Amino acid sequence: MIKLSIIGSGNVAQHLIAAFQNTQNSGAEFELIQVFSRQKESMAHLLDSDKITNDFNDLAEADLYIIAVSDDAIAEVSSQLPFKNRLVAHTSGSVALDNLDDNNRKGVFYPLQTFSKNKAVDFRNIPICLESENATDFQLLEKVAKTISDSVFAINTEQRKALHIAAVFVNNFVNHLYQIGNDICTENQVPFDILKPLIQETADKVMTLSPIEAQTGPAKRNDNETINAHLSFLSDENQKNIYKILTQSIQNNGEKL
Amino acid sequence: MIKLSIIGSGNVAQHLIAAFQNTQNSGAEFELIQVFSRQKESMAHLLDSDKITNDFNDLAEADLYIIAVSDDAIAEVSSQLPFKNRLVAHTSGSVALDNLDDNNRKGVFYPLQTFSKNKAVDFRNIPICLESENATDFQLLEKVAKTISDSVFAINTEQRKALHIAAVFVNNFVNHLYQIGNDICTENQVPFDILKPLIQETADKVMTLSPIEAQTGPAKRNDNETINAHLSFLSDENQKNIYKILTQSIQNNGEKL
Repeated sequence: MIKLSIIGSGNVAQHLIAAFQNTQNSGAEFELIQVFSRQKESMAHLLDSDKITNDFNDLAEADLYIIAVSDDAIAEVSSQLPFKNRLVAHTSGSVALDNLDDNNRKGVFYPLQTFSKNKAVDFRNIPICLESENATDFQLLEKVAKTISDSVFAINTEQRKALHIAAVFVNNFVNHLYQIGNDICTENQVPFDILKPLIQETADKVMTLSPIEAQTGPAKRNDNETINAHLSFLSDENQKNIYKILTQSIQNNGEKL
Repeated sequence: MIKLSIIGSGNVAQHLIAAFQNTQNSGAEFELIQVFSRQKESMAHLLDSDKITNDFNDLAEADLYIIAVSDDAIAEVSSQLPFKNRLVAHTSGSVALDNLDDNNRKGVFYPLQTFSKNKAVDFRNIPICLESENATDFQLLEKVAKTISDSVFAINTEQRKALHIAAVFVNNFVNHLYQIGNDICTENQVPFDILKPLIQETADKVMTLSPIEAQTGPAKRNDNETINAHLSFLSDENQKNIYKILTQSIQNNGEKL
């Protein structure tokens, strides 16, 4: 029986705890023995209070400690753990393995997804990117990851950094473009809802086509008349600028082919 | 019984024809009486050859002619129609109602979706944006649109222009960001597939949350350490530039709130 401990109480921690609790109930070969949370109450809806601690000195012995805290707190939290040579993994896309304290064996357990407080996610589809210092630790991380996800990958620190940047483009920046679309609709008294099926289809398309095959639109067609009409319609300088730069990028891309 | 004629043989024309054919078979109160296509063969898989013509002078009398051709061909095609005072609608997001020839009554029948040749779409979810010169024509357009879609809107030329620009942001530009994500993965030997659940969830999120509520990431958090680490990781000047401008735009946005 693998003993698991989770340190943290934010979005990622809560989603992980919920996923592990569900799997545990279905009889998996591991046990979530403890959760560390500074505010014990904030975890009360997820597990029994005797499994929650707010004192590092009360941390029970476990085979794996998952530190699910904000990026800039990882180094400090890992240095405060009052034990040595156990397996400690963080959950961050952008923090190096080496950021963890040398007192313990280092690992990464990075679920690549965007977590919102009030929106459940199906963990089975969420890719989990793993890294460790040695093969035995990797096997343990893999065993635990596979209990909650069908999509588990070995990804080193450099690859993970690339993946995190790529995720910024396809999630943070894409969402910001949704927002600009929303702003343009609002300014022109058009319901944003009209765009939702298009947003969904745009995402669906790249599940089966490569993005370059899926590309359409005035930039791709080098339709300068439409491009110029759009630029003169836009009055917001920031929207105009983003329109120009992304149009240029699509066009240069065509030339590269 | 409303008589419908479609002029054109591209993606939009083919998807419309397929949608009308399906609905017609289920007993709707209209008939697709004819399709105009320069290459008659290209339509042979969609309907009987006696319903296809490549000669404007053979166009049968219909209650509505839908011109589904490229934006720059709309004016010319509409001017070549050998009849007067009938209802003629184009399917473009960016062409004004007035672009149609004065010989006939003008309308717009704009399905807001991205159509690919080899990917079926469910027309019932596709918003159709309608415009006409008078109320009677609008009613006819609406009746026809509702036979294939559950999502029909009255959108004037100015609103349609805004909507088309918004669609460029949430479709063309979003897809280009997917491609940059793909490029970054390829350059760093990471499978793009790892990002697909995130792409899907990013789209799903704005079905229920507003984009501004759904926004996460280093730009939103003003996490300059991560932003600078990402910028020094990126070697492609174009990717760097897009990263900077979208980060700045998310940050300015926060200030506006």
